[in-house]
Amino acid sequence: MERIGYISSWLKEKDYQLAFIHSKENVFYLTNFYTEPHERLMGVFVFQDEEPFFVCPQMEANQAKTAGWTYDIIGYEDHENPWELISATLKKRNLQFEKIAVEKETISLLRVEMLRTVANGADFVSVEDKLNELRVVKDEKEISILREAAKLADYGVEVGANALKSGISEIEVVAKIEYELKKKGIQGMSFSTMVLFGEKSGQPHGNPGSRTLDTGDFVLFDLGVIIDGYCSDITRTLVYQQVNQQQKEIYETVLQAELAALQMSKPGVRIGDLDLKARGIIENAGFGEFFPHRLGHGLGISAHEYPSMSHNNNELLKEGMVYTIEPGIYVPEIGGVRIEDDVLVTSDGAETLTLYPKQLTVIS
Amino acid sequence: MERIGYISSWLKEKDYQLAFIHSKENVFYLTNFYTEPHERLMGVFVFQDEEPFFVCPQMEANQAKTAGWTYDIIGYEDHENPWELISATLKKRNLQFEKIAVEKETISLLRVEMLRTVANGADFVSVEDKLNELRVVKDEKEISILREAAKLADYGVEVGANALKSGISEIEVVAKIEYELKKKGIQGMSFSTMVLFGEKSGQPHGNPGSRTLDTGDFVLFDLGVIIDGYCSDITRTLVYQQVNQQQKEIYETVLQAELAALQMSKPGVRIGDLDLKARGIIENAGFGEFFPHRLGHGLGISAHEYPSMSHNNNELLKEGMVYTIEPGIYVPEIGGVRIEDDVLVTSDGAETLTLYPKQLTVIS
Repeated sequence: MERIGYISSWLKEKDYQLAFIHSKENVFYLTNFYTEPHERLMGVFVFQDEEPFFVCPQMEANQAKTAGWTYDIIGYEDHENPWELISATLKKRNLQFEKIAVEKETISLLRVEMLRTVANGADFVSVEDKLNELRVVKDEKEISILREAAKLADYGVEVGANALKSGISEIEVVAKIEYELKKKGIQGMSFSTMVLFGEKSGQPHGNPGSRTLDTGDFVLFDLGVIIDGYCSDITRTLVYQQVNQQQKEIYETVLQAELAALQMSKPGVRIGDLDLKARGIIENAGFGEFFPHRLGHGLGISAHEYPSMSHNNNELLKEGMVYTIEPGIYVPEIGGVRIEDDVLVTSDGAETLTLYPKQLTVIS
Repeated sequence: MERIGYISSWLKEKDYQLAFIHSKENVFYLTNFYTEPHERLMGVFVFQDEEPFFVCPQMEANQAKTAGWTYDIIGYEDHENPWELISATLKKRNLQFEKIAVEKETISLLRVEMLRTVANGADFVSVEDKLNELRVVKDEKEISILREAAKLADYGVEVGANALKSGISEIEVVAKIEYELKKKGIQGMSFSTMVLFGEKSGQPHGNPGSRTLDTGDFVLFDLGVIIDGYCSDITRTLVYQQVNQQQKEIYETVLQAELAALQMSKPGVRIGDLDLKARGIIENAGFGEFFPHRLGHGLGISAHEYPSMSHNNNELLKEGMVYTIEPGIYVPEIGGVRIEDDVLVTSDGAETLTLYPKQLTVIS
């Protein structure tokens, strides 16, 4: 419960009286209990000095204990109103609330209104910056899980590459990849698996469909898994059977941009400079207008988390950060290439966790 | 855009000046545009008399038009603040906002604060009851999609049943089911596919894992697909190779409860009475303590939507409603049975959309 202690200390420092943390990702980070409560209320109440308590559906209370939660649990049945139970518990503690820290980006207005009622008209502040600051540096256990998750992402690309044959559809390849990964016992995919052929690879957010594979197509894989609560995220782009000069040029430009951002990665470097470096290479090659998204994003319990690897991010890299580097060039009607690695900042540089080969590969 | 008109009329009737509707399900219902914007802002602004407008990432604007949106679109790039663009548009219209209707259960505090800023300190009310009232009665097109989705759910159970053999694991069966369904071109599964063997079927919210199949096991399938934006949801429980007296008794009790609730379904019946009817049968058989959840839930764009099929729901069934009936008995250490159909209320009764057989089946 060391992480709960960091929140308590922060509450004291800021003179906030309560943090209510409800998202499944942050609840998992603080309690080691991972669950998807859907519309049901779940959350951790953290105070300055008082013991925290956890609210969850009664049927999940034992699993929370098994995961390591040692303080009080308010478990409620479907016919009970958890806010009444919370109100009673808070009254017993006889506390005054002026500022309550919540996850402003995700807590619903309805829950804010309930919290305001049980805690007597308090003001709300954001706890998200603090949680981001804690989560952004991964500890050894987290890194070892992320490494395993990345290996499984590599394996997913390998399965996809081995499945390629003329006439197979994008969704058939998606199904094969997910089937083999599920057999490995993953918790789930970290997002909808993307397999795009030919001109469809030119859509940065395309959906796999019935498009079938043909000679000369780009084949773009973007996928990741969740294991033990942590995500991976890899993109590789191959070419099927034959490659033309334009495809080679696009591919090599993206690869140079990816490698350059990777090479710059080390503690103390401004995050935005990685994006600018990769973007500069793509612009100099004349493809600037075809790289419409940021360089990457933080990776951990969420597939997309803090920090954003954008040109305007002035924060500095720190040892233990894990993020994606994923430049791309998408030429409408022609197709697109994206190459994405999961990257760990080390004491003096960076290590890629995803290891599937990156040189231009023509599947024969 | 008929559905937008219903919201405008409602705003007039209530004297609310604006509805901001942001959830992907309700945006799809109102615009026919289905997308998952993740953390990016998307939403429909609906007024009493003025034309509505739609806010979305610029890269999705064309897809929204293709889906049928004919009014203004505020498309924004990643580096732009959409709230500034919204503020400018609202200023031009020179409107006063006293009450803004939002989806209180899902809109985040951060977005409420932004809305309050661009609309000058308005109060917020809920639009959810109105949207539920509209969505709960399905039209012919919706029913025909739900029928197809239910057929694919039937097929998923068939694939799962055919995959059963001694020693196969739960997750292998999950993978086979999802593979075959994805080959049929579904948009996705409507929730995490559940395949539970033996004592694990006794956990109403169990997760498929490495448990392997053995003689005498219950096999519980709970799965559904999304096609054209609509969900299905089926549960069937089979027995592997041999069945004992206790299993037969549990199974027959659940089946009688399910059939009784189904038979009662017709316009004008109190929803809560369906739950009470099924629950009574299970209680009379001595299993009352092992049926810990409500009878079912509405089904449509969301896998779980309004209405809740709970004993305390006093609303009446209406023609065109679609919901699940899914009683269950879960005996710890022994195992559980749940039988779930998707049900459509017709003019004088009800039709089950899911058609996989329900008599006790022993897989040999």
